[in-house]
Amino acid sequence: MSGRLIKLTLEYDGTDYHGWQIQPRLTTIQGTIEKALRQLTGKPIRISGAGRTDAGVHAFGQVAHFAPPVPFDPETWVRGLNALLPGDISVQSAEEVPASFHARFSAKKKTYAYFIYNSPRRSPLRRRTAWHVFQALDLSKMRRASRLLTGHHDFTSLCAAGSETEDRIVDLEKIEIRKTDSEIKITFQAPRFLQHMVRNLVGLLVEVGRGRRAVSEISGILEGRDRRLAGPTAPPQGLFLMRIAYE
Amino acid sequence: MSGRLIKLTLEYDGTDYHGWQIQPRLTTIQGTIEKALRQLTGKPIRISGAGRTDAGVHAFGQVAHFAPPVPFDPETWVRGLNALLPGDISVQSAEEVPASFHARFSAKKKTYAYFIYNSPRRSPLRRRTAWHVFQALDLSKMRRASRLLTGHHDFTSLCAAGSETEDRIVDLEKIEIRKTDSEIKITFQAPRFLQHMVRNLVGLLVEVGRGRRAVSEISGILEGRDRRLAGPTAPPQGLFLMRIAYE
Repeated sequence: MSGRLIKLTLEYDGTDYHGWQIQPRLTTIQGTIEKALRQLTGKPIRISGAGRTDAGVHAFGQVAHFAPPVPFDPETWVRGLNALLPGDISVQSAEEVPASFHARFSAKKKTYAYFIYNSPRRSPLRRRTAWHVFQALDLSKMRRASRLLTGHHDFTSLCAAGSETEDRIVDLEKIEIRKTDSEIKITFQAPRFLQHMVRNLVGLLVEVGRGRRAVSEISGILEGRDRRLAGPTAPPQGLFLMRIAYE
Repeated sequence: MSGRLIKLTLEYDGTDYHGWQIQPRLTTIQGTIEKALRQLTGKPIRISGAGRTDAGVHAFGQVAHFAPPVPFDPETWVRGLNALLPGDISVQSAEEVPASFHARFSAKKKTYAYFIYNSPRRSPLRRRTAWHVFQALDLSKMRRASRLLTGHHDFTSLCAAGSETEDRIVDLEKIEIRKTDSEIKITFQAPRFLQHMVRNLVGLLVEVGRGRRAVSEISGILEGRDRRLAGPTAPPQGLFLMRIAYE
C-alpha cells in the first residue's frame, strides 16, 4: 500500500449505542464500524476516532481514520460501508489523507451543539435529540454566564472528576445561545474539549438560567478547580458533535 | 356533568404505532390514549380524532375530543395523561369546549408538513422523520407543478384507491416548498384532505423533481380522476400533521 490513510466523516444517532469507544460485549459506534470494515474487506481494521462520544450522544460530523488493507477508492469505502452499516450510522464521506494524518491529533477545531427543549410539556418528537427543561430559563443570564466561561481557562471544574487528562487549560473560543420557539441551541467551539466538558457547561448554564446559580459565581467556580463546584451534568441525548476542522 | 367536552392537542412520534385508529391486537395512538384515560379515571372513554394518521406518520398538533366522565380541570387532564402516556405520545394542551364541538367536523383548516432529506448519503439522524431521496430534485419544476395542483380540484387521482370518501373535491389552499441545506419541507394547507392525499401529492411532486414526469402532465393527471395516473405514494415517516384550526 501507499502508506496513505482513509479519513471517514460519520453521522450517527447515538441513542442505541454505548458510546463511541469499542468495549467487550457492548454495542458501540466504533465496534459497529470495525465490524462493517471487516465484512467489507475480510480483514481486521482498527479505526481511530477524533473523540469518544458518550453513550446516547449523536454526531453529524465525527471523524475517524484507518490504514486501508485493500486499495479501494474513497467512493467504494462510502458505498460499501453504508450498505453494511445499520440505519443509525452512516458514512458521509471518505477521502485519502497522508500517513501523517491523525483524526484526533490533527484536529484544529471542534464544534458541538447542545439542544434544550424548553417547554412545560415534554416533546415526543424531540425526546431522543434534546434535553427537556420544563422551567422557564433566563437567556440573558445564560448569555452573561457564557461570556465569562468563554476564553482561556483551567476547566477542571467542568471536567469529569475521573478524567485522566492532566492539561485542563482549554481555549473555549465560542459559546453561542440561540432560541427558536421552544428550542434552545447552544453551540461550543474550541480546539479540544475535556471529558464531559460540554455537558457540564450546559448543566451549569441551565442552573444559571433557572436562577439556582448566579452569574457572579462563575469566576469562583472556574478558579476553584473542583468538579463539585459546577452543578450537574446535562443528559447525553441533547449533545451533537457537529464538525471537526483540520488544517 | 355539564355536557362540555374536553379537547386535547397531541404530539406524537408515530414510528412505533400502527397509526391513529384503534384496532384489535395492534398498538395505535388512539388505543394508547384511551388506555391512559381508563387508567386515570377508572372508566372507559372513547376519543374522537380530527384525522386518522397512518402507521409511521407523526403529529405536532393532532386534535381529539371526548366526553369527560369525571370533572377534572384541563390541567389535571394534561398532567395525568402525560404521567401515564409513553414517551412517544404527549398531550400539549387540554381545554373545555362546548358539546357542539367535534374534532373532525368542526375543523376549518389543516396543515401538514412533509420532510424530504435530499442527499446522496442517507442521514441516520433523520431516518425516522424524513424521506431520503438521493437523486437531485429540480425544485423549480416542483414549484411549478405545485402551483397547478393548488386550488379547487377533484383529487381522485391523488386519493387512496380504496377510499370510501365520495366527495373528492378539495380546495387545496397552499403548497409551499422550502429548502434548507439538504432538507426540503413541503407544507400543505386545506380545509380537509383525502386518504393518502398528502403522501400521494409528495410522490407526484418528487417524480416531477426527478424528471420522470413533466409539469405539463399535471392537468391531465387531475382530469383523469384515476389513482393509477399519479405515481407512487411517499413513505409515511416524512409526514407531520402540524396544526388544525377551528373557528
